[in-house]
Amino acid sequence: MIIIMEPSATQGQIQTVVNALHNKGFKTVLNKGDVMTVIAAIGDKRIIDPHSFQSYDGVRSVKLIQEPYKLASREGRQEDTVIEFSNGVRIGGLEKPVIIAGPCCVEQDLDGLLRVAEAVKEMGCNFLRGGAFKPRTSPYDFQGLEEKALEYLAIAREKTGLLIVTELMDTLDLDMVCQYADVIQIGARNMQNFKLLKAVGKCDKPVILKRGPAATIREFLLAAEHIMYNGNDKVILCERGIKGVDNNSTRNTLDISAIPVIKKYSHLPIIVDPSHGTGRRYLIEPMAKAGLIVGAHGVMMEVHHDPENASSDGAQSLSIPMFKDVAKRLNKLIGRIDYDNKHSMSMV
Amino acid sequence: MIIIMEPSATQGQIQTVVNALHNKGFKTVLNKGDVMTVIAAIGDKRIIDPHSFQSYDGVRSVKLIQEPYKLASREGRQEDTVIEFSNGVRIGGLEKPVIIAGPCCVEQDLDGLLRVAEAVKEMGCNFLRGGAFKPRTSPYDFQGLEEKALEYLAIAREKTGLLIVTELMDTLDLDMVCQYADVIQIGARNMQNFKLLKAVGKCDKPVILKRGPAATIREFLLAAEHIMYNGNDKVILCERGIKGVDNNSTRNTLDISAIPVIKKYSHLPIIVDPSHGTGRRYLIEPMAKAGLIVGAHGVMMEVHHDPENASSDGAQSLSIPMFKDVAKRLNKLIGRIDYDNKHSMSMV
Amino acid sequence: MIIIMEPSATQGQIQTVVNALHNKGFKTVLNKGDVMTVIAAIGDKRIIDPHSFQSYDGVRSVKLIQEPYKLASREGRQEDTVIEFSNGVRIGGLEKPVIIAGPCCVEQDLDGLLRVAEAVKEMGCNFLRGGAFKPRTSPYDFQGLEEKALEYLAIAREKTGLLIVTELMDTLDLDMVCQYADVIQIGARNMQNFKLLKAVGKCDKPVILKRGPAATIREFLLAAEHIMYNGNDKVILCERGIKGVDNNSTRNTLDISAIPVIKKYSHLPIIVDPSHGTGRRYLIEPMAKAGLIVGAHGVMMEVHHDPENASSDGAQSLSIPMFKDVAKRLNKLIGRIDYDNKHSMSMV
Amino acid sequence: MIIIMEPSATQGQIQTVVNALHNKGFKTVLNKGDVMTVIAAIGDKRIIDPHSFQSYDGVRSVKLIQEPYKLASREGRQEDTVIEFSNGVRIGGLEKPVIIAGPCCVEQDLDGLLRVAEAVKEMGCNFLRGGAFKPRTSPYDFQGLEEKALEYLAIAREKTGLLIVTELMDTLDLDMVCQYADVIQIGARNMQNFKLLKAVGKCDKPVILKRGPAATIREFLLAAEHIMYNGNDKVILCERGIKGVDNNSTRNTLDISAIPVIKKYSHLPIIVDPSHGTGRRYLIEPMAKAGLIVGAHGVMMEVHHDPENASSDGAQSLSIPMFKDVAKRLNKLIGRIDYDNKHSMSMV
Repeated sequence: MIIIMEPSATQGQIQTVVNALHNKGFKTVLNKGDVMTVIAAIGDKRIIDPHSFQSYDGVRSVKLIQEPYKLASREGRQEDTVIEFSNGVRIGGLEKPVIIAGPCCVEQDLDGLLRVAEAVKEMGCNFLRGGAFKPRTSPYDFQGLEEKALEYLAIAREKTGLLIVTELMDTLDLDMVCQYADVIQIGARNMQNFKLLKAVGKCDKPVILKRGPAATIREFLLAAEHIMYNGNDKVILCERGIKGVDNNSTRNTLDISAIPVIKKYSHLPIIVDPSHGTGRRYLIEPMAKAGLIVGAHGVMMEVHHDPENASSDGAQSLSIPMFKDVAKRLNKLIGRIDYDNKHSMSMV
Repeated sequence: MIIIMEPSATQGQIQTVVNALHNKGFKTVLNKGDVMTVIAAIGDKRIIDPHSFQSYDGVRSVKLIQEPYKLASREGRQEDTVIEFSNGVRIGGLEKPVIIAGPCCVEQDLDGLLRVAEAVKEMGCNFLRGGAFKPRTSPYDFQGLEEKALEYLAIAREKTGLLIVTELMDTLDLDMVCQYADVIQIGARNMQNFKLLKAVGKCDKPVILKRGPAATIREFLLAAEHIMYNGNDKVILCERGIKGVDNNSTRNTLDISAIPVIKKYSHLPIIVDPSHGTGRRYLIEPMAKAGLIVGAHGVMMEVHHDPENASSDGAQSLSIPMFKDVAKRLNKLIGRIDYDNKHSMSMV
Repeated sequence: MIIIMEPSATQGQIQTVVNALHNKGFKTVLNKGDVMTVIAAIGDKRIIDPHSFQSYDGVRSVKLIQEPYKLASREGRQEDTVIEFSNGVRIGGLEKPVIIAGPCCVEQDLDGLLRVAEAVKEMGCNFLRGGAFKPRTSPYDFQGLEEKALEYLAIAREKTGLLIVTELMDTLDLDMVCQYADVIQIGARNMQNFKLLKAVGKCDKPVILKRGPAATIREFLLAAEHIMYNGNDKVILCERGIKGVDNNSTRNTLDISAIPVIKKYSHLPIIVDPSHGTGRRYLIEPMAKAGLIVGAHGVMMEVHHDPENASSDGAQSLSIPMFKDVAKRLNKLIGRIDYDNKHSMSMV
Repeated sequence: MIIIMEPSATQGQIQTVVNALHNKGFKTVLNKGDVMTVIAAIGDKRIIDPHSFQSYDGVRSVKLIQEPYKLASREGRQEDTVIEFSNGVRIGGLEKPVIIAGPCCVEQDLDGLLRVAEAVKEMGCNFLRGGAFKPRTSPYDFQGLEEKALEYLAIAREKTGLLIVTELMDTLDLDMVCQYADVIQIGARNMQNFKLLKAVGKCDKPVILKRGPAATIREFLLAAEHIMYNGNDKVILCERGIKGVDNNSTRNTLDISAIPVIKKYSHLPIIVDPSHGTGRRYLIEPMAKAGLIVGAHGVMMEVHHDPENASSDGAQSLSIPMFKDVAKRLNKLIGRIDYDNKHSMSMV
């Protein structure tokens, strides 16, 4: 931690800060410049809120040096985290990237869901996604079938062997969701719902944590840290678009560079969601490829048996035939990436 | 709702969209331009997700005409909502703006809290704020005293008669918080925690709903709509800063213009939080004044008996003597605004 | 300047950076933490581009300690800059805040311009603004009357004694604009047009420099530094709105807190433009007041004799009668601020 | 153009707007909803500034239906623009994507520049980039060698046959730059320097137009429209990163989805600049690949013979050996893309 004093800070003010740092167990180094003094505080800043030092008279600003997350950081753990599922599928590291597909929201039409699930299975994918509880901006929009949706997903799993990914929105529903899900998803709007992060941190299911639309990489990894700190280290990060400068052309701006950045700073797997990330069907395929080519461990995308009548997100869902086409081309790219990874060659 | 077709859309594609609109109970007007066709759909768009029409072939985009919130809108209710408390204090409309003050977080030191409460009372303010559960970006930061904090706040209320504002973070804690709080706060990071909005929508306490740091006015009012739709119309909005272009000078960018914009579009009271909105102590007073002069119904600010040792947000907290100075000047401005309001004069 | 080394940086990499710093005339202090090493470099970083050190192997990041502007900074000059005009009007410091008003764009109708000028004069304001060259997002929009507009402005000055503020868009037009203008405006889109900044830096007219819509405070003050570095220290900064999170309710987000922030970091005068800052007529008055109450040295706003037929920006222009009403109330607020300033009292 | 009236708009207000539209040559269709009336105005909105209608009483908002650019739009021209150079190299459409490489800034060391040029040539690339005038945020940073740099670039061209890309910053330098450059670059900060756009619109050199860091796609294409409207249709767009939510991990957020979005809305070539787009050397290769795989017509990247001593942007420059490695892998990917394009196959 670096504490920058105002040019006008007095000797007494500097000393007060230094003393406070010593009291909190830090060692200090003073860097006196021509204009201002900088105090380097050496020690484990995780025990205090560093911004508290901004309160002292004469302090201009406080800068963190070390990233404030630890369990999620590459420094905390060098080797990549690889998460293995009961059926042997693995996510992370140099494993073959996965495809997670399914409707935004599970609807009344069980048969439609099963047709999607069959297509997902047929294309060699291992994960079926589908929402039981839907976070909707408007209270007038469809809010999800709740437990009935979970039962439908379980039926789809039974018929296809696919693993089920579904979102948890409330700590009250944790037990119910755990009963059905293979992977629990935490939505972007709940990325800093710390009670929810704590709750999934105490269960033993893998968690897909989506990046909040205005979250920095640091805030994103700190959210993962909340889950890990509470005991669950099976966290899969998911880039799904940030608020950019143009919300007319795309719903969000998919931050592709976040993938290699996160792989540098963290050992956790990171996947990409081009459906929510763009909100446009025609962008799903190119942006899935962009995510994969920079190293994403997987792609999550929305497929619906009848997008024009979907209860949510139809415009960013592929129909079943489109999905098959896209999946075929993505599988080809995934095959090349996997080949290069396995042969320790640089991608492409 | 306006559906804009692609220039290349065929007659058949246009007809398919028109038929689908009719099936969903809309009347349509076709606007054929030289280059493209625009379909105006007349009816209650709240029964469908308008974006579903973006799924149809040949559709370029879908634009909402009417705002998607209803209960929170000025059109739904012309006169200002004024919320009255047991002790006769009122928030909203042309009522005298209020000051809500107190520590970010209630800490072990009950005496410190009581000293803050006495100062708040002494300055003629009616509300004491203080967090029992703290949403913290890092799991290593202090997370709050939980029920003990609520008990302390109740003691402070007993001693001063101040009304208590405290944050609810999890549906599981709703009953406990309701037992102690006069006003429930929903934090910025939970603005789209729809389960929580639903839960407070079902209780009868006034709710302060803070704007999410990347939320549009529409998203903010839709979050209020979730609460109102579930039965609670005592919603007080709170502008507390958005992610701007410079997070170095200030923690957030306090969006002062949101206050008159919201007063135009909604009848709900709106207050301003210059502590979180700027993250800098020296900006609390000027930004509180800016909020008041554009019509805010109140100011919420952080006061701590010992900011340098606060467990959170010390840098944006006033000490007790500073608070008294600032409150004196704000009271003077509030007095003028109140005088002008009462005499139906334009402000200042 | 602080150079943060990667946790994995070798001793040799650290030494290479230290040597390079010494070669460039810096003194260094090493701060060895448990996890990583931080090198404090003491000396005048203005002689090098600090980011160049990010190129060295083993460097994680480089942080500036001192602001990179000097002439524009409060440290470079303690007392406020006050700019005095030929007619005795002064801007800056504790001088009475000014109002600058006029049409976005000077049009064919000279009489209309003169009616606006008379109203501006009548309300006790001292500055008439009007564009001769208009930066327009679309090439199909009206681009300005060029020299004819400047002649019209000179006529208005002759008739009213008002000082003329007009925008310069191209170095080629510098001499012509200087011939007519009392104050040269640099538009937001040209804030980093460094050739233009250099050109106005070499002339002796006061310059109003508008903040770019995505510029940080640091970038804004560095743009002022370009002008000052080239010899012209009569720079008036102008906050005119940034790109916020909601471009539907307002055209830009007027960053009111930028005013007290800039007054802390710089001695230059700072004014506020609520017309461009909001793009909505109904927001001009409240946001002008917000700017003034936090300490702006002036307000710039658009007035048109016939806003519905304005060739640009009609929606954010006041009509003449509206302007008179607004100016009356702003003058009242300005009077109070001036009284308090003169009596060394805190505002309001 | 769609004009949305306030719910409270009177019949007279609606009629006034309709009359004004008729006077300006528009046909109108009235869409009367239950709550509000929407007026569709049919005709060429390019003849007026649509926002002028926002000035009328009773108007809530004005929405454009057709994009306001015409020459740059896919509707204005169906087939892709392909730009051919004297040496037969082509950019755009299904042509093989190109690599443009070279130092940010041409420096005193001619030999260093020539070594970079040789490497660029050796890797089969056709374009050498290098700045003669450098837009620098700080006046204390190196501003470029000006004409001497242009002479150096001409020497490099003579020795290697590479085409020269260099930036123009001021209309005053147009003739000089045209004398040396094969392609004129307009920098991101000048994207809305309309005088400069007009000037390059009148010359006959191809222009690389970089996207402003806060520009929407619409603003970007309107900037291209300025150039085309003035007579030059050889415009190459360049995505180089926008202001995102995290400026700590990367300098900008490279908006990869802008590439397929622009290819949908415009026929102009679009290239990607991962050096400026990320500001981090380690991200150049993955982000170049991401750009290419979504369809970019080329990549522009920075290479320096001695990045640690570069006068600007060293941290985002590749050294010569790194460049060779990266170019080899990019060439392999380009080869595949070209093969697929030539055989009308979907990419990858």
